[in-house]
Amino acid sequence: MSVLLAGPRVRLRERLSSFDAQAAGAEMHALVRELYPLCRSITGDGLRRSLRLLQRVAPLRLHEVPSGTQAFDWTVPREWNLHGARLVGPDGAVVVDAARSNLHVLGYSVPFQGTLSLEELQPHLHSLPDRPTLVPYRTSYYRDDWGFCLSHEQREALMPGEYQVCVSSTLAPGSLTYGELLLPGSSESEVFLSAHCCHPSLANDNLSGMVLAATLARLLEGVALRYTYRFLFAPGTIGALVWLASHEEQLGRIAHGLVVACVGDSGQLTYKRSRRGAAEIDRAVEHVLAHSGQPYSVRDFAPYGYDERQYCSPGFDLPMGSLTRTPYAEYPEYHTSADTPELVRPDRLADSLLRYLEVIEVLEGNRSYVNLSPKGEPQLGRRGLYEPVGGHSHAAASQMAMLWVLNLCDGTRSLLDVAERAKLPFREVAVAAEALCAASLLAVGPRP
Amino acid sequence: MSVLLAGPRVRLRERLSSFDAQAAGAEMHALVRELYPLCRSITGDGLRRSLRLLQRVAPLRLHEVPSGTQAFDWTVPREWNLHGARLVGPDGAVVVDAARSNLHVLGYSVPFQGTLSLEELQPHLHSLPDRPTLVPYRTSYYRDDWGFCLSHEQREALMPGEYQVCVSSTLAPGSLTYGELLLPGSSESEVFLSAHCCHPSLANDNLSGMVLAATLARLLEGVALRYTYRFLFAPGTIGALVWLASHEEQLGRIAHGLVVACVGDSGQLTYKRSRRGAAEIDRAVEHVLAHSGQPYSVRDFAPYGYDERQYCSPGFDLPMGSLTRTPYAEYPEYHTSADTPELVRPDRLADSLLRYLEVIEVLEGNRSYVNLSPKGEPQLGRRGLYEPVGGHSHAAASQMAMLWVLNLCDGTRSLLDVAERAKLPFREVAVAAEALCAASLLAVGPRP
Amino acid sequence: MSVLLAGPRVRLRERLSSFDAQAAGAEMHALVRELYPLCRSITGDGLRRSLRLLQRVAPLRLHEVPSGTQAFDWTVPREWNLHGARLVGPDGAVVVDAARSNLHVLGYSVPFQGTLSLEELQPHLHSLPDRPTLVPYRTSYYRDDWGFCLSHEQREALMPGEYQVCVSSTLAPGSLTYGELLLPGSSESEVFLSAHCCHPSLANDNLSGMVLAATLARLLEGVALRYTYRFLFAPGTIGALVWLASHEEQLGRIAHGLVVACVGDSGQLTYKRSRRGAAEIDRAVEHVLAHSGQPYSVRDFAPYGYDERQYCSPGFDLPMGSLTRTPYAEYPEYHTSADTPELVRPDRLADSLLRYLEVIEVLEGNRSYVNLSPKGEPQLGRRGLYEPVGGHSHAAASQMAMLWVLNLCDGTRSLLDVAERAKLPFREVAVAAEALCAASLLAVGPRP
Repeated sequence: MSVLLAGPRVRLRERLSSFDAQAAGAEMHALVRELYPLCRSITGDGLRRSLRLLQRVAPLRLHEVPSGTQAFDWTVPREWNLHGARLVGPDGAVVVDAARSNLHVLGYSVPFQGTLSLEELQPHLHSLPDRPTLVPYRTSYYRDDWGFCLSHEQREALMPGEYQVCVSSTLAPGSLTYGELLLPGSSESEVFLSAHCCHPSLANDNLSGMVLAATLARLLEGVALRYTYRFLFAPGTIGALVWLASHEEQLGRIAHGLVVACVGDSGQLTYKRSRRGAAEIDRAVEHVLAHSGQPYSVRDFAPYGYDERQYCSPGFDLPMGSLTRTPYAEYPEYHTSADTPELVRPDRLADSLLRYLEVIEVLEGNRSYVNLSPKGEPQLGRRGLYEPVGGHSHAAASQMAMLWVLNLCDGTRSLLDVAERAKLPFREVAVAAEALCAASLLAVGPRP
Repeated sequence: MSVLLAGPRVRLRERLSSFDAQAAGAEMHALVRELYPLCRSITGDGLRRSLRLLQRVAPLRLHEVPSGTQAFDWTVPREWNLHGARLVGPDGAVVVDAARSNLHVLGYSVPFQGTLSLEELQPHLHSLPDRPTLVPYRTSYYRDDWGFCLSHEQREALMPGEYQVCVSSTLAPGSLTYGELLLPGSSESEVFLSAHCCHPSLANDNLSGMVLAATLARLLEGVALRYTYRFLFAPGTIGALVWLASHEEQLGRIAHGLVVACVGDSGQLTYKRSRRGAAEIDRAVEHVLAHSGQPYSVRDFAPYGYDERQYCSPGFDLPMGSLTRTPYAEYPEYHTSADTPELVRPDRLADSLLRYLEVIEVLEGNRSYVNLSPKGEPQLGRRGLYEPVGGHSHAAASQMAMLWVLNLCDGTRSLLDVAERAKLPFREVAVAAEALCAASLLAVGPRP
Repeated sequence: MSVLLAGPRVRLRERLSSFDAQAAGAEMHALVRELYPLCRSITGDGLRRSLRLLQRVAPLRLHEVPSGTQAFDWTVPREWNLHGARLVGPDGAVVVDAARSNLHVLGYSVPFQGTLSLEELQPHLHSLPDRPTLVPYRTSYYRDDWGFCLSHEQREALMPGEYQVCVSSTLAPGSLTYGELLLPGSSESEVFLSAHCCHPSLANDNLSGMVLAATLARLLEGVALRYTYRFLFAPGTIGALVWLASHEEQLGRIAHGLVVACVGDSGQLTYKRSRRGAAEIDRAVEHVLAHSGQPYSVRDFAPYGYDERQYCSPGFDLPMGSLTRTPYAEYPEYHTSADTPELVRPDRLADSLLRYLEVIEVLEGNRSYVNLSPKGEPQLGRRGLYEPVGGHSHAAASQMAMLWVLNLCDGTRSLLDVAERAKLPFREVAVAAEALCAASLLAVGPRP
């Protein structure tokens, strides 16, 4: 695991206030374009090179897990590398060629060379009758098979006759690669962010998540943090399982977590709750979204989707949700050749990143406090915290935030509890708490 | 109590899949017609003969409880038998005659013979000003009285003059009759089904319930059952109280129960919750109705209606609801001469019966399970439980059911919990659990 | 504290049934008119004279708390008395004069005499740009200042030139005055009603509350009460704090409480919940409002408004809500010269008073009961509590109330629980409980 060296620390709020959304969006999008052509899979050089590209953004450390390694009910498969794949028609014309798009080859195709009739070929073809112009993304990790993916239009136009198949790939003992980065905070308690990295030329799913997570790590570098932040870049399912299996005794440290995926499309932000449903991470994300001023949606956990399937399996039940834009499988370009870098918008990447930062702001600041002057209101005016002329209809927003903090902070409630009850943005409540602490009217409470 | 002899046992799901709704509906309706003319009351030969007719369907055993027997705050009254009742007008014409409809006589009328002026007669007449063509059903079980019920139209047309009254009835020490049937299951825990049998010529209330309960008993005969099923056919209130009083030490065995009534009219199914409100029977019935594909309604318990008033009194508080079609007193024909066999429809009887069977299917199958491979998902594909080609947007329904079962079955949740959380029909979840048990990925949990 | 002498006691229900709303409304309104011109503040003779006027209605006892007395974080200020205040313009015309309306002078203005340019004067002027014809109510209790309040129209028309200012006031050691009244009940447990008395010529806020509370005290005089009733008439904030500080060891006796304010305007009744949110007082008031047959609103506690800010501070957390008509700051006349006796309507004062009485009726009658015949229904007919002829569709309302009480009263529920569950007015349920107690079917339960 890689640990960033600490320089002089800045406060998270300062880092947030200097956040340049436009620059961040442009930079993330450029990286998505660069990563796009690589032929990623759950193992292999495409995955390895992608992780190395991310190292330009944040110093993640690469780990290699040998084929055959056991991870609970699963085994790390042989390493797959694709050297070329081409289907040539009866007329000698190239039907599809992996060199044009790595989506054209069924992921983990075994090597194959031969001539087949169209009828014999059909079981090896994959297309989408309901979206006939798009090429689907298909894999066969755990059953030896080869195949081609193509548009349904093209498939329908295939002439009878003999087809020449050439899949040049290697499936051999090797290793599964994942990247990891640790930003130490003042506590060993961790916030865990996980992005899957196994999809080939699909931009939103999940180059967007990979670059967002890496950029988030870079932004948190040098910030004085309460929690330790762990970033995992790993192939889906088997990568998450391999990491879980090798870190089982440390999982108790994970206080909050998010699966980072599909964060660049133009859809609204969507939060999928953890299996627990009302964990602090769930409440923090929902609070941030509710105060984002944008439409958003929240849904309950379901055992389908990304690696929350593993993290939230009953044997772990980690407090991890998933913050995406349009969720898993709900945009028409999902898992097809239409999930290109054009589907991903720089401003949406930046907006997603900002919300991740705001969630972290809530987690970092969410403590319980105790009102040190709990009998009646303390005389705020005397301390310059309340306007001297009385009789007005409404208190200023900052005064209201202070009154809420004073009223509710009896040691049993967190600041997020206060913000939710007061229907105020977390930051306003946090600023009020700081002012009251400075005036010795409030102190950090016994709860962590 | 009567116990059906066990032959070779079939699975409930097979019995359900071979259920012939049309035949069952026709058969039940024929029995309603046959029962209709009998003059039932809370005691007497009409009740006795009705129960004997039900024995043609299921081998219930009849019990006789002597007049004067104490049941909590109540006493079994003298046995009532009606031999005839006739009201003759000043012109010598018969106004009403119990021989035409037993509704014409006030239930439990004491014998009386005499001549009265119309004015003297009026307090003994019962009619419905708001439904002037219908004859109401009225009783006077616990105050000595006699009377006639007639349509308000007819009552309004009565001429002044002398009326001859002849009520020929006997009220004498005898007994109250009830029928009971027990289908033993592998557990002593009971599912209790109770139908009131005391109403005279009223078809939906409650010949429909009586024939449904008897037919349900017959359908469960020979089925391998987890619970023991108890069926009670008894007069309302006093019958239920007598049964409760004589089975008080066994009431703890009642795990779930339903009051069966008004199950043949064309209204939508309605479930009235138990007093507990969220007992397993409440959840099971609501689940079945929610997945029935038909409109339905659910309402909270109220201390009015049928014998749930007794079963759910605070001294018993049994987990019993009532599954009816149009509920108690909410259809215009209720407790009038319009509640005829024509109001009851064979297809609605069969539909109601099917829902009772589905409720039983849920109760029988509702266990807790434990995922034996709880850390991450087990590799279902390796076991042929998951399709080998990956990348599709959605999992097949059967796979989703398996994923839900694996994710939620940590021993704390029942299959009904899983079905509700997953918004899947119970049967799909139960089939998934069976498949996972067969693959040694799941085991029955510690909870009963 | 003052204690009313007990004469022969009447039942609260009798007092309620003889309540003459019209007379009460007229009387309360007349007192509002009489109190209106007095120059009240948080100390001083205007406050003292106002409390003495209330003694005509109910024998509250006046308490004097010396300047300098400490109350938690606060100190009783010097006593303020205003002898006159006048602002004369460059043309010698009187701009404003406190003799015309005491709102014209900034509350707690220090004495000042001088000549100022318009520019120098402006920081001492207070007006409402958004409501330009109204004079605002402003104070400066805790910072030495003087000032005038005037309409924004008038302020805008002020000519440049020299203004003569004369504020003739005294700020000197003296005392803060509050009034208190105690009506002893059979229990030491208290119902606490608090009205703030510090506002000068503002009728709805809070002469309406002062006269309602005093009239309520008079109406409860001579009633056989379960709770002890405490009425506090005190200046806002500092008065409540002074009282809390001097009664701290008795606060545990306060079982329920209400802040009485803004009860005379034509808006709908509004209940602001206690900080606890579901205290018995909250449920009682909401029940009364729900059955009032009038529109109303309920809102959660917020740490702004009247003296619930102090009573519900976390160090006390008293079960006190606030029952008003249009709430704090939500009517346009609020804290302005438009809050005159004309804004207050006799019939609304009487309606508010009636609801306070009904709330007290609920609190007084809300006990837990135990069904003494809990197994099945007791035979109500035998006791004349149920009609003898059976078969009707619906039970009479009084019978339904009895069935609900019998079904739910197992010692764990209060009558208010029963009324809420049964959706019946509390009084119906209370009458049913009395009838059942008289029939020895019900007894007062173990809970208080």
